[in-house]
Amino acid sequence: MDAFKKTNSPCGVCNNRYKITIVGLGLIGGSLALALKGFKNAEIFGIDINSSVIKKALDSGAVDKASLNSSEGFENADLIIICVSPEYINQIIKENIAFIKPGAVITDVCGTKMLLYKDTQALIPSDIEYIGIHPMAGKEVGGFENADKNLFLNTGFIITPLKNTKNRTIALMEELAEYIGAKRIAKAKGELHDDIIAYTSDLMHISATALCIDFHPQMNNAYTAGAFRDCTRVGNIDASLWAELLLYNGEKILPHLERHIKNLENFKTALENKDKNLLFSLLALGGENKREMLKR
Amino acid sequence: MDAFKKTNSPCGVCNNRYKITIVGLGLIGGSLALALKGFKNAEIFGIDINSSVIKKALDSGAVDKASLNSSEGFENADLIIICVSPEYINQIIKENIAFIKPGAVITDVCGTKMLLYKDTQALIPSDIEYIGIHPMAGKEVGGFENADKNLFLNTGFIITPLKNTKNRTIALMEELAEYIGAKRIAKAKGELHDDIIAYTSDLMHISATALCIDFHPQMNNAYTAGAFRDCTRVGNIDASLWAELLLYNGEKILPHLERHIKNLENFKTALENKDKNLLFSLLALGGENKREMLKR
Repeated sequence: MDAFKKTNSPCGVCNNRYKITIVGLGLIGGSLALALKGFKNAEIFGIDINSSVIKKALDSGAVDKASLNSSEGFENADLIIICVSPEYINQIIKENIAFIKPGAVITDVCGTKMLLYKDTQALIPSDIEYIGIHPMAGKEVGGFENADKNLFLNTGFIITPLKNTKNRTIALMEELAEYIGAKRIAKAKGELHDDIIAYTSDLMHISATALCIDFHPQMNNAYTAGAFRDCTRVGNIDASLWAELLLYNGEKILPHLERHIKNLENFKTALENKDKNLLFSLLALGGENKREMLKR
Repeated sequence: MDAFKKTNSPCGVCNNRYKITIVGLGLIGGSLALALKGFKNAEIFGIDINSSVIKKALDSGAVDKASLNSSEGFENADLIIICVSPEYINQIIKENIAFIKPGAVITDVCGTKMLLYKDTQALIPSDIEYIGIHPMAGKEVGGFENADKNLFLNTGFIITPLKNTKNRTIALMEELAEYIGAKRIAKAKGELHDDIIAYTSDLMHISATALCIDFHPQMNNAYTAGAFRDCTRVGNIDASLWAELLLYNGEKILPHLERHIKNLENFKTALENKDKNLLFSLLALGGENKREMLKR
């Protein structure tokens, strides 16, 4: 009888309400908590190292339960989403793996996967599933106070299974991605993911920040239009987070950065030699590629 | 009696309706025609080398009169705004200066001023005023078909007087800038203008285009978010126009481009040496400068 009285069990038979635990309630973790409300009628449990964030998350209703102490959150969790700085992910898994039940799924939202997974794989027993996700969303400002349930609407979403990840776990992530509103979903091995992200994200953040290092001292906003605003927007960067992300993916970033510098050197040569043909061909090639990329 | 019958004279006394002639009805010229409607109750005369553009401009009501033949447009014009590719500006002035009445004001919207003005100054008799303007607005797509009366709303606008430009001509350009909706108006000598623009516009266009030259072959839109979209947006470039603009301002661009390459080389060194402190300090400096620039 009891089993039938429980209406919030995802399968309708067992006694357990589906439990999602989000570790780290910053911009991404907080936004996921908000966007996942109602997903599988789950209880959402938040973990953070900052008690004022715990309080805000509970007061705002972003999470059903929350705690500084992670073991409580890991126990009985069906899905654990780790949303902390990459250097702490494996440590968190290591410290809490004993509390995690068989059949649970662990995922992380880290923007770099390969280096992380080198050590992660060994930490996960065969009866627990691990799979990476990378929601392609962010803001120039971080923290729970900037969390937004619409952060993932119409964005890209990449799923990076490990060697042993089961198809049903991939399907769960696809379901999750659709639930939070992502529109463009891709699946890739960690290494390919990192190589593409080195170009589409890491190189762009390096470029935007580098463009701000030597700015014109006499400029003001009369001299700026869309090109300046857009090319430098993400230059308003969280330096601690990105120093880490870039270091994590350094091996994949370097060849892209080297090619970019070479292309800029070609522009320099063209300008030095007043070589209009070279200048035109560089601009035409870049423009053609940009239009090709817009179609993908 | 006749003088008093004419109600559309700006001074209310003379017989002449104020006449603005716009040479070149592309994106900027066409948008200016639309945005200047009603300014000083002027007749707007459009000149273009393309008869289908002339027809579109007349049919849409963007201009009151239009012609392929420029002499008709220059005669009796009070304000001539030249909106053509930089290489033709001085030629147009030279060929038509004899038709331009004393007291008229000639201006151009070219994004580079110094090299142009080296030759322009000598072409202008002392009873005709010359002044440069640079509306800081654009689109990735050009042509009259993309002209928009709101293109200049809330944008920057730079006025670059020549040595002999009178204060009342500067005031006229300020009035024009406010009329078309520009919100941030600056005044600078051509040389300073070019140096600042080399950073805020030219370098940004080079960066965005260079970022598109070697793109990741396996990328698609699941892997792209705001950083990619914004850093490469103006990479969808008009290669002919920009080859010319960049060549015109090459001398001013080169030092900015060299500094940018040096900053990227520093990122490369930091990644190669896994030097987190250097990486952090580069990111922190860029971020700090970006936030400082947002206040200007």
